[in-house]
Amino acid sequence: MVRKKTNKLEKMVFVFGGEASDGGAHLKHLLGGKGANLAEMANLGLPVPPGFTITTEVCDAYYRAGKTLADALQGEVNAGLDHIAKITGMGFGNTENPLLVSVRSGSRASMPGMMDTILNLGLNDETVSGLVKLTGDPRFVFDSYRRFIQMYANVVLGIDHGVFEDLLESYKNLNAMSLDTELSAADWQAIVEQYKEAVLTELDKPFPQDVQQQLWGAIAAVFGSWQNSRAKTYRLLNNIPDSWGTAVNVQAMVFGNMGDSSATGVAFTRNPATGDKEIYGEYLINAQGEDVVSGIRTPQPITEAAAKMSRGDAISLETAMPETFVELAGMLEQLERHYRDVQDTEFTVQDGKLWMLQTRSGKRTVDAAITIAVDMAEEGIITKDEALLRVEPTALDQLLHPTLDESAVGKAIARGLPASPGAASGEVVFTANEAEAAKAKGRDVILVRTETSPEDIHGMHAAVGILTARGGMTSHAAVVARGMGRPCVSGAGMLRINEATGELNIGSDTFKVGDVITIDGSTGRVLLGRAKMRQSKMSGAFTTLMSWADARRRLKVRANADMPRDAKQAREFGAEGIGLCRTEHMFFDDDRIVAMREMICAEDEVGRRAALAKILPMQRDDFVELFETMSGLPVTIRLLDPPLHEFLPKSETELERVAEGLDVGLSRLTARVKELAEFNPMLGFRGCRLAIRYPEITEMQARAVFEAAGIAAQKTGEPVRAEVMLPLVAFRREFDVLANVIRKVGEEVAQERGHAVPYDIGTMVELPRACLVADRIAAGDDGAAFFSFGTNDLTQTTLGLSRDDAAPILQSYSDREIFASDPFISIDRDGVGALIELGTQKGRQEKPSLKIGICGEHGGDPASIAFCEEMGLDYVSCSPYRVPVARLAAAQATIRAEKPLEES
Amino acid sequence: MVRKKTNKLEKMVFVFGGEASDGGAHLKHLLGGKGANLAEMANLGLPVPPGFTITTEVCDAYYRAGKTLADALQGEVNAGLDHIAKITGMGFGNTENPLLVSVRSGSRASMPGMMDTILNLGLNDETVSGLVKLTGDPRFVFDSYRRFIQMYANVVLGIDHGVFEDLLESYKNLNAMSLDTELSAADWQAIVEQYKEAVLTELDKPFPQDVQQQLWGAIAAVFGSWQNSRAKTYRLLNNIPDSWGTAVNVQAMVFGNMGDSSATGVAFTRNPATGDKEIYGEYLINAQGEDVVSGIRTPQPITEAAAKMSRGDAISLETAMPETFVELAGMLEQLERHYRDVQDTEFTVQDGKLWMLQTRSGKRTVDAAITIAVDMAEEGIITKDEALLRVEPTALDQLLHPTLDESAVGKAIARGLPASPGAASGEVVFTANEAEAAKAKGRDVILVRTETSPEDIHGMHAAVGILTARGGMTSHAAVVARGMGRPCVSGAGMLRINEATGELNIGSDTFKVGDVITIDGSTGRVLLGRAKMRQSKMSGAFTTLMSWADARRRLKVRANADMPRDAKQAREFGAEGIGLCRTEHMFFDDDRIVAMREMICAEDEVGRRAALAKILPMQRDDFVELFETMSGLPVTIRLLDPPLHEFLPKSETELERVAEGLDVGLSRLTARVKELAEFNPMLGFRGCRLAIRYPEITEMQARAVFEAAGIAAQKTGEPVRAEVMLPLVAFRREFDVLANVIRKVGEEVAQERGHAVPYDIGTMVELPRACLVADRIAAGDDGAAFFSFGTNDLTQTTLGLSRDDAAPILQSYSDREIFASDPFISIDRDGVGALIELGTQKGRQEKPSLKIGICGEHGGDPASIAFCEEMGLDYVSCSPYRVPVARLAAAQATIRAEKPLEES
Repeated sequence: MVRKKTNKLEKMVFVFGGEASDGGAHLKHLLGGKGANLAEMANLGLPVPPGFTITTEVCDAYYRAGKTLADALQGEVNAGLDHIAKITGMGFGNTENPLLVSVRSGSRASMPGMMDTILNLGLNDETVSGLVKLTGDPRFVFDSYRRFIQMYANVVLGIDHGVFEDLLESYKNLNAMSLDTELSAADWQAIVEQYKEAVLTELDKPFPQDVQQQLWGAIAAVFGSWQNSRAKTYRLLNNIPDSWGTAVNVQAMVFGNMGDSSATGVAFTRNPATGDKEIYGEYLINAQGEDVVSGIRTPQPITEAAAKMSRGDAISLETAMPETFVELAGMLEQLERHYRDVQDTEFTVQDGKLWMLQTRSGKRTVDAAITIAVDMAEEGIITKDEALLRVEPTALDQLLHPTLDESAVGKAIARGLPASPGAASGEVVFTANEAEAAKAKGRDVILVRTETSPEDIHGMHAAVGILTARGGMTSHAAVVARGMGRPCVSGAGMLRINEATGELNIGSDTFKVGDVITIDGSTGRVLLGRAKMRQSKMSGAFTTLMSWADARRRLKVRANADMPRDAKQAREFGAEGIGLCRTEHMFFDDDRIVAMREMICAEDEVGRRAALAKILPMQRDDFVELFETMSGLPVTIRLLDPPLHEFLPKSETELERVAEGLDVGLSRLTARVKELAEFNPMLGFRGCRLAIRYPEITEMQARAVFEAAGIAAQKTGEPVRAEVMLPLVAFRREFDVLANVIRKVGEEVAQERGHAVPYDIGTMVELPRACLVADRIAAGDDGAAFFSFGTNDLTQTTLGLSRDDAAPILQSYSDREIFASDPFISIDRDGVGALIELGTQKGRQEKPSLKIGICGEHGGDPASIAFCEEMGLDYVSCSPYRVPVARLAAAQATIRAEKPLEES
Repeated sequence: MVRKKTNKLEKMVFVFGGEASDGGAHLKHLLGGKGANLAEMANLGLPVPPGFTITTEVCDAYYRAGKTLADALQGEVNAGLDHIAKITGMGFGNTENPLLVSVRSGSRASMPGMMDTILNLGLNDETVSGLVKLTGDPRFVFDSYRRFIQMYANVVLGIDHGVFEDLLESYKNLNAMSLDTELSAADWQAIVEQYKEAVLTELDKPFPQDVQQQLWGAIAAVFGSWQNSRAKTYRLLNNIPDSWGTAVNVQAMVFGNMGDSSATGVAFTRNPATGDKEIYGEYLINAQGEDVVSGIRTPQPITEAAAKMSRGDAISLETAMPETFVELAGMLEQLERHYRDVQDTEFTVQDGKLWMLQTRSGKRTVDAAITIAVDMAEEGIITKDEALLRVEPTALDQLLHPTLDESAVGKAIARGLPASPGAASGEVVFTANEAEAAKAKGRDVILVRTETSPEDIHGMHAAVGILTARGGMTSHAAVVARGMGRPCVSGAGMLRINEATGELNIGSDTFKVGDVITIDGSTGRVLLGRAKMRQSKMSGAFTTLMSWADARRRLKVRANADMPRDAKQAREFGAEGIGLCRTEHMFFDDDRIVAMREMICAEDEVGRRAALAKILPMQRDDFVELFETMSGLPVTIRLLDPPLHEFLPKSETELERVAEGLDVGLSRLTARVKELAEFNPMLGFRGCRLAIRYPEITEMQARAVFEAAGIAAQKTGEPVRAEVMLPLVAFRREFDVLANVIRKVGEEVAQERGHAVPYDIGTMVELPRACLVADRIAAGDDGAAFFSFGTNDLTQTTLGLSRDDAAPILQSYSDREIFASDPFISIDRDGVGALIELGTQKGRQEKPSLKIGICGEHGGDPASIAFCEEMGLDYVSCSPYRVPVARLAAAQATIRAEKPLEES
């Protein structure tokens, strides 16, 4: 909702409590979450201490007017105080029946503990006397007064807490006391005097006795706390706009610390850890809110069932205050049904009377979120669509990977990028071979490298986690680790790895092979030693929710998988096909890379063909297994893509070692490495450019695909229709040249086998030019049958930003809000997105049947999946471990596309 | 003109000669150049031996029908023969008065010498007798017959020339003769018999005596020669489509070798070397066409003036055949006026009668082209616009650089890319320092490097030419060399340079420092030794033509110049401003690079600012000089662009040397080099990304610009309005962040100076994303004031192709016709062009006043300039030495944009 900004504000104060409220839950943007919900609860007839809310617009006006409040506010605030007085029968500043109020912040988005709060406001030397008379409990009154002075002096007057704590400490020492409970009414009264004197000394002004002065000071302080550094940082981290501002809630105080018929507590309508349908919470008899969280006294469980589960001596609210419990349980159910979500509430019992102080949507674990969403839908409280929207897709990652038990996290020794989710502990090793050797001996290892290359893949598979010093979220390490489901922290720039000495330096610390570390691929943390883990489980509710998601989503979900084992994993996670099989990853196995290197170093086509002939059977066998695994589902095979130098060794010692195993000799190998070296390999001799120069590679790969398809079809009885995909196409002629090579092989294989080979030829769309001429590439029966947007490369070229080199830029760009989000994680809609839109529209304009998917890392990102839904793509393809996330995100995208205005 | 292709052809044969012709010059696509012009000349009333042309469509049909000719052709050919017979009174195959014909190819585009020709067709044993009777010259007749047999046997029957040459040689040896002129009629008759026998032996079939069979064999052979390998190669090199096909011209023979009243020759209507208005050509009395070009006899000049200029004993046609000369001169003038261009003609005088055999537009040197165009416009033959269109803009390069004298070209030892035009000879050196030292001693050197980097610039300036083993047409070496006007051959892949031993290996040859080589930057050749050069001059006609171009063109032409000396050169060549001053090139001078390195290695902002403070005065002084040089013209200053590692040393020895001269120590320097290393520097930490991370660099540069502008304005009395340009912008926020830094400095300088600093802030548009969000980048008064398309980087990112790594791709891509032309030379219209169009349209939609130019290497390419005109850009900016080319190309673009259909 957009509100016009005028300097004159319409209504600045909204009252709540008593018969009815001015506001309600729908005015959250104006009253903040707390104020809106207090008003709503009062409207529902729930017992809410009366009060009023000064709107967020006043906060905004306050800042725009150079931190001054509008004169007109005074009248409205006084009317608010009158409203409270009328309901409570107490008067603000009245010496006989004094009204005490709390003054709290409350913004549109929850910002727990970030802003200031003042309690017990309205106490001064005179009202204190009145209150003593009224309650007959001087100890309670003076304790409240000293608390108020300390809090007000700190928050409003800016005096350090320590001043008051020191005074209290001295007093106790002097009087040989150790616990606050030992202090009597007189002691607290004496402390109050010391506190007031301390204020006078610090400020050269007495503590304000005028309750109006107290109130206005508190209001300004709460508005001021919107811009304290904690709040600003929190907003930045949580994408909360500065302009939202905070409301101020002034509310009659109720006291849970007025004896054994008083209490205070928090209660969830369902268990936020498990999602079970049971009241969950804690309370304390004769206590104020801060006591529940301070840890000085041990809070007790709310329900008798929970009490029995915990300890023998716990006394539940259900037992201690049975009537209040029944009343509370009723209110909780009413609130959950009203808000249609789990509620996290605060309550106080003052002298047997239950007051509701807060309600809000309850935070929950992912397990609980799933269970609650499914249960509530099955209870008819929410729809299935709503249930699907209630679970954050990326949170499903926690179900698929172990995560750190945050209650037992050790010393962080470094931090990198959260490149592949999950946590793992293991011994440090520095090479792929060490990793494999250790794994063979049954040891868990973390492979630590400056960066990984395709040669490290076996080591990455052997390791329980991967840690690199360089590379971004879509570096080789990150992409491969996500594909394997291995946790990975990448780009931890402070790591200095010395393979030769077997040492890892982080700052002044040195780690050696065998030292144990833990990496948390969900946050990027690197910890010393072994850490405690938790593993969520895929519950029945999960299965139910995913089945709803599958029924609801329009987008198909495929997986990027290069090896049969990855494909198997993907299929278990619900993948509906392979969207991207990178054939080159098959070339790095020990026996294959030799033939690959012979091919690269061959002097002529004859030599290349001889080497390719050795690769053919191996590649064919891989494809057979892949097709069998994915039987009945589509498989997209991308032809050789990376620059050839990736297959060659780099260092001189490696060169010598490799040359020995090859027929070609060191000088030819070295010359070839030199020849193939590139300034910008990303923009070099790769993709279809290789195939155009060496069509015999394409011939071999096409033959392997077609022969494998025949074998797999025979084995499984299911026909295989392979999708052959050309990488890095930018010109229609490139497509034609290679499609003709493939078609020729198709005819040959058909002739050899005696029956037709069914296949489609399509292309990656990963260069801006391909999007711009997509109509030409798709045109005609002999044009591309499908497009797969390779958004990794498309992002790199559209933004002119190498993902491997982006690290030094990303931080300064997010600091200055240049990136809305990391463009390698969520599709850059305005740039890359515009090209995808163009490519899709142009492609379909020529060929309405064109099948279009996306196979970059964005295929597993919910925001990007929503974009794919808007573009009308046919499928997304992502890492196997991301498939469940994508299935849910796709369902949400479908729902949101249908009802774009449903959510606020 | 597009003609519909049907299997049934409308009219296959067009006659010419006599009263009128079926065709004319407008049917060049159908009749070929030769046929169309013969028809046209006949229509003009010029004496053309009668004949007919079989159309190019017949050729196309011939190939489409599997090399068979349509039956219907026979009738049309016979009608054509009748046409000739009727006019000449001779009969084809008639034994008393036999008609002899020539059968020649003739395609739409000139393909000199690529296809086959048969002369004297119609001779057989019987017509020979008739002809002897008729002419009374048996020697002439039998000589003609043996020539015919040899030519026909070779071209149509496929018998090697050598067979006949051997027979003639043996005959002469046997009879103790050495010259052909010694042979009598009887000798030739004997030779004829031997030739016929040779044919019988070779083919087991006699030489065809049936003149119809002769003719059809010849027609098929000419059509067949369209697909010979020479012709195919020529077409590929000259972009002539295969589908054009050739026509066949059958024409009555005339003989210039029938005695002293006969002659044959070639004549230009003006001097094709100088452009002077004088008949230019050669002739021979009593000779056939081939004698003029064979070099056996020395041809004589046509005019008496030329005869006097040449040698004492030359006899001009003007003197030898005065009446014929007058007739010829009249026809030449008529032809030139009719065709409105210089004509290159062939003529034959048979027994006193002048026949015109060919006319076509005359090839000419660039000097001549300019002179002729200007003269013809001033004579009123053509318009000024036509004059402007008559000169190929890129040919102007020859005026600005010395070129090789092709008559004296030595042994080519290597070949690379023609990276910067002009030729140069010098001693080989391998380092910039050697180059500088040699230059100081007055020696000419060629700097030979694997690749160049900004550190080599002083050496490139000291050298007369640059040769590199790696890098494309837009590599560092190429760009800098073009900017300096130094010839450069880049990417000569066969070079192996060993700096350490001071050796250059090319194949098995070794060259050492001091060996002399010549490079030809216009063709990419590398020659052994010193070569003869020629230097064209900028004539008065050139100045006139350029003034017409300036008056006509809409596009402004600016230059890319980094140093005052380049700016001066650019201004002399007519640049109307600086479109791109790359400020980083100023940082490579010895004293500056030290400060630059200190800046890069500084630990914090304080350290960086200290180093920048040292650079400020140097940069300011450069700008002062630049602004003074360009006084009154706009100057666009681009802020620091290259990745920082370009300023740091690479090898370990260099590192040690540099560390000594720096305050920072080797370990910090080495660490920084490691930190800044990138996988894809082109897509890395550069451009505005540097400035956003280190805004203090921008502050320094902005200050240097603004302070310099003030000083220069004071010195020259002309106000300076600097254009500050941000590189690599892709997001509006990038622009805003830096524009704010610049504006703040602008205010500071204004305050210090006491008056406003006038400037504009704009941006390079060199990333696809920038084009896609150009509307946002331009929007509002605080948006970009100008765009400059950086088409080098835009091409690299749009195509995903690094210019430095493109070499292995370019060849296979042009072989397979994937690139219409090298996209780094001419703008890729469909891809890059589409983005430029989008960027222009979006930018102007938000800001109609947006000034838009182009500053990539394409700014000097005529095809790209034509594109810029179509897009409505405001200016192009190119290398200083390219400015005259751009001025002419821009004028042509304006003219063509106004009259797009003027040209065929």
